[in-house]
Amino acid sequence: MLDGDSPGVTKASVPPEKFGTRILDMVHRLAQWSERSDGLMCTFFSPAHKAVAAQLREWMRSAGLGVEIDAVGNVIGRYASAAKSAKTLIVGSHYDTVANAGRFDGRLGIVTALVVAEHLLRTEQRLPFHLEVIGFSEEEGVRFSTPYLGSSAVAGRFDETAMRRCDESGVSLAAILQEESVDLAAIQALARRPGGLRGYVEVHIEQGPVLLQRLLPVGVVTSIAGSARFRITIHGVAGHAGTVPMELRHDAAAAAAEIVLAVEQRCSSATTLVGTVGQLAVPRGLINVIPGCCELSLDVRAGDDATRDTAIADILAAIERITERRAVTAVVTEIGRHAAVACSPTLQSALAQAIARAGVEPFHLASGAGHDATVFMGVTEIGMLFVRCGNGGISHSPLETITAEDADIAARVLLDFLVNLDARR
Amino acid sequence: MLDGDSPGVTKASVPPEKFGTRILDMVHRLAQWSERSDGLMCTFFSPAHKAVAAQLREWMRSAGLGVEIDAVGNVIGRYASAAKSAKTLIVGSHYDTVANAGRFDGRLGIVTALVVAEHLLRTEQRLPFHLEVIGFSEEEGVRFSTPYLGSSAVAGRFDETAMRRCDESGVSLAAILQEESVDLAAIQALARRPGGLRGYVEVHIEQGPVLLQRLLPVGVVTSIAGSARFRITIHGVAGHAGTVPMELRHDAAAAAAEIVLAVEQRCSSATTLVGTVGQLAVPRGLINVIPGCCELSLDVRAGDDATRDTAIADILAAIERITERRAVTAVVTEIGRHAAVACSPTLQSALAQAIARAGVEPFHLASGAGHDATVFMGVTEIGMLFVRCGNGGISHSPLETITAEDADIAARVLLDFLVNLDARR
Repeated sequence: MLDGDSPGVTKASVPPEKFGTRILDMVHRLAQWSERSDGLMCTFFSPAHKAVAAQLREWMRSAGLGVEIDAVGNVIGRYASAAKSAKTLIVGSHYDTVANAGRFDGRLGIVTALVVAEHLLRTEQRLPFHLEVIGFSEEEGVRFSTPYLGSSAVAGRFDETAMRRCDESGVSLAAILQEESVDLAAIQALARRPGGLRGYVEVHIEQGPVLLQRLLPVGVVTSIAGSARFRITIHGVAGHAGTVPMELRHDAAAAAAEIVLAVEQRCSSATTLVGTVGQLAVPRGLINVIPGCCELSLDVRAGDDATRDTAIADILAAIERITERRAVTAVVTEIGRHAAVACSPTLQSALAQAIARAGVEPFHLASGAGHDATVFMGVTEIGMLFVRCGNGGISHSPLETITAEDADIAARVLLDFLVNLDARR
Repeated sequence: MLDGDSPGVTKASVPPEKFGTRILDMVHRLAQWSERSDGLMCTFFSPAHKAVAAQLREWMRSAGLGVEIDAVGNVIGRYASAAKSAKTLIVGSHYDTVANAGRFDGRLGIVTALVVAEHLLRTEQRLPFHLEVIGFSEEEGVRFSTPYLGSSAVAGRFDETAMRRCDESGVSLAAILQEESVDLAAIQALARRPGGLRGYVEVHIEQGPVLLQRLLPVGVVTSIAGSARFRITIHGVAGHAGTVPMELRHDAAAAAAEIVLAVEQRCSSATTLVGTVGQLAVPRGLINVIPGCCELSLDVRAGDDATRDTAIADILAAIERITERRAVTAVVTEIGRHAAVACSPTLQSALAQAIARAGVEPFHLASGAGHDATVFMGVTEIGMLFVRCGNGGISHSPLETITAEDADIAARVLLDFLVNLDARR
């Protein structure tokens, strides 16, 4: 019985099997089910989605886990602790995808946890906590324009208004679930008792180039960035491109250009801060007409809310200065603001120690993207391990990739982390 | 007989009638014929276009001019000189419009010439040259995507490939003209013998804010700007807006923003130079994706070609510096380059003297827009008089306007100019 081991004592690392090639093979096999023939797409409760769930269930069963697909399609494999009063550690990620997706986003975390759990079972290593490997059914928010349908149910944070949301063909989530004889009460019943959780841990492809640039296979996530999003419309004065002298113009696109560069400059001044103008357009622009209007989007994220909010205040002040000087107007509409989620210092430290024991320099980085981990904030401790993303860090793309070596290191780090994690909390 | 008067001697200005209100009334009456109920639109050989031509013919006839509508729809009113061997001075502009047009663009010049010719006839003032008041049928290039159909025929520069051009409904210009029993030979027969022309003069609304800013009712045009047009496509690297740190980005929109501001800055450095990015777009941009591509247009004009071409070279060099520093690529495609057209110094001087005699400070300015005058370059001397454009200088818009007072001054200046112009050349 391992429960009650002192946290300062480190158990010897178990010599792992070759996890990496197995993980990549499983990820590639899951990618065979898609809603589209021209790329990977697997959204909530589509036939491809159900096929992937069935495959995950089958693999978990073969691994010796106790398996269940719950009311919202989460595939759960349980490895019980010998200590009956033990808490539960969830290791999960999602198996749905965006359109024309990469293969590793979400699924890497599920199959990494799966092969590690299988190894624990095979080598008869019991843990001082129950282990749940969960493939969450929905994280990307593609079909119903709302994310975390799977993980939020488990975290006890399912948004009941989501039931009324409809997909592109006008079918509501409630109607989809009714076909499966699932109602809101059944979903709410999936919530774990917060006191019963030891923590939530997620392995995920980085989806960015930081680890690649640092030549590191894995890294510890410090926080999941909060984001704020805006739509900005600049109104200037349209005019003939030949007849209005430069000094008499009120060019909406030139004002927008200054704003784009102001965002870039301001957001380059702090480590976890990023700012993006992803949408930029002169509506119905003509080659010989000075833009009277220009529309742009703004997405600002940072590892902590103060950093993000200070940057936003500075950007809004810059927009005011730019538009005032150019005698144009800006309508700025905030369309969303989400708080940053900090990862648990103790889980970060435990992951960092496991990384060091794998012979890798422990490196900490913020996550700019949202993850299932987000919904467990305040419910239990959160820890995340990022895995190096190849091809320059591209994600949400068929070019998304990782190496078998990095997957292997990630699995070994997770295994080491699990066997050395105490039961407390 | 006035032919042979010495050019240094100025005849006394004829006290004019109240031209201004009459001109505005005529312009408003022409605006009643439109292809659209929601705005003014009058394109080549539409029913509205033919109705306007008929009205112009009727007014010219009433004025006592010898009238003709030629093979391409130009409405021509002739006031012969007493000197049979006299050359011909054309005073013209166009009566076609863009979509949702202003009322004054083109038509102001026709009716101003018309009321002045009528005054000359009524007061029995003969000129040392034949006067032709011409309402050109086509200048805007809307229906067949090629401009100057009317004036180029008179200038002997009709582009025969235009006959094969089709309108939106697939009907060719040749087919339209065939219905009127007009063939290419009939159009080519409209060309004036260059040796027979005294000059070409055009009164036109400025279509910009320069005279408005200078508090001047009229101005002398120095040149019609040459233009060069480009399409620019920036290719960067798309990426997740949350996961790619600022310093690792290759944002196509940020590069485009720098280019927009470089164009603005460079083109603010010389008097007649203007540069416009009228089209700017991140194709299929998403709020949470770093732009991998950005498309923009570039239109550069100047009163002389050297000024324009130096600016273009500097802008292209700036694009190279910007894209190199950001490690993005730019594909720059030139889609047109037209030489500037200089107005005749002697006609400029004669117009300036007439302006001064009207008690107005003679002011010279370049035209950034193209005009029928352009096609007479190299055929005969060109002179242009601009009239102040209200509402901030807006044109190609229902908001385009002038005042009766300014129209009055323009007509008086034109009258004075005509009675004082010598017969030479």
